[in-house]
Amino acid sequence: MQQVIEGALAKLIPGGPHRLQGSSRTDAGVHAFGQVAHVDLPLHARLTPRKLRAALNAYLPDDIRVMESVRAPKDFNARFDAVAKQYRYTVWNHPAVNPLLRGRAWHVPTKLDYGAVKRAAGLFVGTRDFRSLTANRGPGLDDAVRTLTRCRVVRSGPRITFILEGSGFLYKMCRGVVGTLVQTGMGRFSEADILRILTTGNRAAAGMTAPAEGLVLWKVSYSGKARRGK
Amino acid sequence: MQQVIEGALAKLIPGGPHRLQGSSRTDAGVHAFGQVAHVDLPLHARLTPRKLRAALNAYLPDDIRVMESVRAPKDFNARFDAVAKQYRYTVWNHPAVNPLLRGRAWHVPTKLDYGAVKRAAGLFVGTRDFRSLTANRGPGLDDAVRTLTRCRVVRSGPRITFILEGSGFLYKMCRGVVGTLVQTGMGRFSEADILRILTTGNRAAAGMTAPAEGLVLWKVSYSGKARRGK
Repeated sequence: MQQVIEGALAKLIPGGPHRLQGSSRTDAGVHAFGQVAHVDLPLHARLTPRKLRAALNAYLPDDIRVMESVRAPKDFNARFDAVAKQYRYTVWNHPAVNPLLRGRAWHVPTKLDYGAVKRAAGLFVGTRDFRSLTANRGPGLDDAVRTLTRCRVVRSGPRITFILEGSGFLYKMCRGVVGTLVQTGMGRFSEADILRILTTGNRAAAGMTAPAEGLVLWKVSYSGKARRGK
Repeated sequence: MQQVIEGALAKLIPGGPHRLQGSSRTDAGVHAFGQVAHVDLPLHARLTPRKLRAALNAYLPDDIRVMESVRAPKDFNARFDAVAKQYRYTVWNHPAVNPLLRGRAWHVPTKLDYGAVKRAAGLFVGTRDFRSLTANRGPGLDDAVRTLTRCRVVRSGPRITFILEGSGFLYKMCRGVVGTLVQTGMGRFSEADILRILTTGNRAAAGMTAPAEGLVLWKVSYSGKARRGK
């Protein structure tokens, strides 16, 4: 996505390449509805934010759209100034696939124990070492402590939405948490198992990584200082 | 859709063709999430409803799925026993297209006066002659009186959902109501105009027909008697 937008910027504004910095990278297949990115444009690019958005959207392919464009403070950095991110994950828990959610949800045909999923979700909230829930293994991962401020589960009929919010997420961590919660709903993990998963740091003890297509980067939040743009 | 499911039934159960009767036809491009249909199967088709659903879904293309399958009372008729239908229509009211709603929403870039839309929606509730809001013109339409029991508008950010419920709907009537409401939000119609549209019966006086892709047949309801199946 980053390269595609950079390509459109290069066509629009001479003097490129213009490097785009997103709040975070998303894995292939993950939807990035609330992604935020910044770019430093040369002074001769005298486009209003509104015109920049319109021009970019005219150049971008159908599956990528700039929803908002604002002038940011000079030192704004979409990656380092982000204070919180919210992800949402959709599970379709019904024997039959829902064609209206194709590519947007994980289809789980086995009836889940929703109460067990809901109770287990609460166990992930807090400041914990999440190394057992990331796909990033090996010596590169020295600090795996992250703070989840929300891990909510909401149901509407067969549609289950997981809402995860925190200051930062490890590689595939959301999908590890959702995979573990869904397998809790299948009876594979008890609450005691989950506490053990969170304390031992052993990826193999935790549940599967949920498929990418159900995940959406829903919102990135910035502090008041960083938002002082127009 | 009907023919596709009938094709799958013919492959599954000898002695066909087996004629499928839906609660109503939906226009091309309209999603039929809550569609209900019945079929009379020969006695030798000793499939449980659960197995019938699984077998049909194995034969159907990706964009059609049977969500539930139940044994109905002998005289159940999906079309004539329906007592109410609910349609939902999604509008994305934002300058930029939302790629996650492609094919699922009407993109309206002009900022709508949401309060005006909400107030106008209430005017459609009740038993009225809806001939000015259907695309079915000409001598065939002698009875255009229908009862709308609900016409609600719900907003979540730029996403506006119209919920229409009633005992019956004329051809493209939902889309006529939503088109008129959206144009009310653009300032084209006042509340007095809408009352005039509903009393004069002149299609040209009403608003445009909203595009098909935002519309979903959400739910079909049956009386207790018809639901006595297992």
